[in-house]
Amino acid sequence: MAPIGIAIIGGGIFVKEEHIPAALSSPLLQVKAIWSRSLKTAQDAAKLIPSDGASSVDLYSADSGVGKSYEDILKREDIAGVILALPIVDQPAYIEKALAAGKHVLAEKPVAKDVATAVKLIENYKKVSAETNASWAVAENFRFTPAWSYAAEEVKKLGKVTGFVVRIFFLMEQSNKYYNTSWRTTPEYQGGFLLDAGVHFTAALRKLLGKDNTVESLVAQTALVSSHLPPVDTINAVLKTKSGVVGSFINSVGTTMSAFEFQIACEQGTVKAEGTKVVTTRGVGQDAVTEEKTFEKTSGVKEEVHAWAESLLSGVPNPNQTPELALGDLELVEKMLTSGDQDGVRQKLQYQHFV
Amino acid sequence: MAPIGIAIIGGGIFVKEEHIPAALSSPLLQVKAIWSRSLKTAQDAAKLIPSDGASSVDLYSADSGVGKSYEDILKREDIAGVILALPIVDQPAYIEKALAAGKHVLAEKPVAKDVATAVKLIENYKKVSAETNASWAVAENFRFTPAWSYAAEEVKKLGKVTGFVVRIFFLMEQSNKYYNTSWRTTPEYQGGFLLDAGVHFTAALRKLLGKDNTVESLVAQTALVSSHLPPVDTINAVLKTKSGVVGSFINSVGTTMSAFEFQIACEQGTVKAEGTKVVTTRGVGQDAVTEEKTFEKTSGVKEEVHAWAESLLSGVPNPNQTPELALGDLELVEKMLTSGDQDGVRQKLQYQHFV
Repeated sequence: MAPIGIAIIGGGIFVKEEHIPAALSSPLLQVKAIWSRSLKTAQDAAKLIPSDGASSVDLYSADSGVGKSYEDILKREDIAGVILALPIVDQPAYIEKALAAGKHVLAEKPVAKDVATAVKLIENYKKVSAETNASWAVAENFRFTPAWSYAAEEVKKLGKVTGFVVRIFFLMEQSNKYYNTSWRTTPEYQGGFLLDAGVHFTAALRKLLGKDNTVESLVAQTALVSSHLPPVDTINAVLKTKSGVVGSFINSVGTTMSAFEFQIACEQGTVKAEGTKVVTTRGVGQDAVTEEKTFEKTSGVKEEVHAWAESLLSGVPNPNQTPELALGDLELVEKMLTSGDQDGVRQKLQYQHFV
Repeated sequence: MAPIGIAIIGGGIFVKEEHIPAALSSPLLQVKAIWSRSLKTAQDAAKLIPSDGASSVDLYSADSGVGKSYEDILKREDIAGVILALPIVDQPAYIEKALAAGKHVLAEKPVAKDVATAVKLIENYKKVSAETNASWAVAENFRFTPAWSYAAEEVKKLGKVTGFVVRIFFLMEQSNKYYNTSWRTTPEYQGGFLLDAGVHFTAALRKLLGKDNTVESLVAQTALVSSHLPPVDTINAVLKTKSGVVGSFINSVGTTMSAFEFQIACEQGTVKAEGTKVVTTRGVGQDAVTEEKTFEKTSGVKEEVHAWAESLLSGVPNPNQTPELALGDLELVEKMLTSGDQDGVRQKLQYQHFV
């Protein structure tokens, strides 16, 4: 069976470092085209794809003229889907065009710049996909790293969840390559990097807490600690789940502190997940036994892109890639930012039922 | 010069394990009397004091009859001060009687069961001490451990404070000796162990943040995680300082998680204080250098009792033992509990100017 023809839309850092290698590593996919705003960027990205007699990659861009536009890719019958990795505010228009053309979409997180936009996009998607059968998957690679899956399973074994603390601290320096993307330096969406990176952390937390402990409401305070990271770079939030559990979510991308830790307390022990290391303590008090499990470092993107390819083959969307799931991740970040904007006024959540 | 004659009021765990050894270790003090509710307890405590020809300890108790009451101790001219370690709700009456009798007081924290009581006590103290010259010191031993002092000095060297996280997690088990004190098992004050132990942690945080970063307001959510620790055993709070810094204070005495860590972020580095270990990171990013300093384990009670004796000699109250300072510690806990009771409504603080 011939691999599924796809196009990659975008030629930025993440496309080069993650999406292209991931697409190349899946035997189910063949990259047939790359589009970027500039031909130069598309050419640079295409260099990463080895050319042989059987395959070649066609380049498209906003500055390439007739027959080489994004819309032209969508007309190609040999291309069944697109991987979209564009600036957050640009993505919706590209998603809608692809779906309208009957192309499957794997689009980078967040699902949209805000919940209102995401809800509209999802409503439109449901209408369009009923006609065209095109599917829309959101790429949240944290859902495809084995450490988080393992940690989530460990939590389930330790009884009722009783508390949690998320601490994610790092300094997004001005010299960082991701900082120097223009759409990130002066973001046109609430929260800047806190939204961009934050949906990864809410996705991870939601996975760890599971469907019995979805977040029901929260209070938060936000701050700008490092002046080069407007509008805000720090969230301190207190979350309450529908099961009545209270926990803290603390994320700063502008701090001198350093941490990457999800602590989940359960009645019969605790799980501490750190991305590649998961420390499980089984039992309470003197009887407690601690086990540390280390996982190979992976972004999860290869697993995620391959899972998407499999879903295209089977016709069944991967439950870890639905826009509804990504909406829940986004809502959790957005409500923390909104509570912060309102100096800590309690926010209720409504899109947390998909976990 | 003869040592200062004092009486110890109370014969509980902390008196036996800490106050008596501390009083014995200070050459400035001589324990002349012990009072407890029951003679039996006073006798048990007195056994810890070696008797020789020169000294003897007189026992007083509520059940010893005429001439052996608390009031009788206060009449003795050879006793200049009392160390008070009674149940939280009982202390105020004993403090007021001692001060009225012109005796100096070192009373256990918290300063009172609530801010309202503490404010009244302080007002009365000012009036009475103007007449009798008797001083009232509050025992907050965390202010006398060298690790916290060192950590506070380190914070000052690293520029402006930009954030902080306090995580104090332990499980107060039903078998714990402190749990099995009747006045703690069914507390007659807000917060139970969260108040009792919590003032230590707010004292430590306030010391680390310093007078430029006193807490101005907060939002908090409280919970009862372990049913044997009513009314609540868990606080998740977000604090905002008058300098605009936002930080988290998370304290659970009923969780399976385990932590004892104060993280302070500054512009030029971070300080992590863990009671006996202080980790200072000087510098930011790749230039950062980390230094770990370990201190001998001490409760600080010996240092605190000796400092009190010195203040009696000099006539100048120790600035680390003022009731106003202890009021600030108490207010910070109380406001977190109150915000929790009100489901996260913001509370403003007003007694934080003494640090």
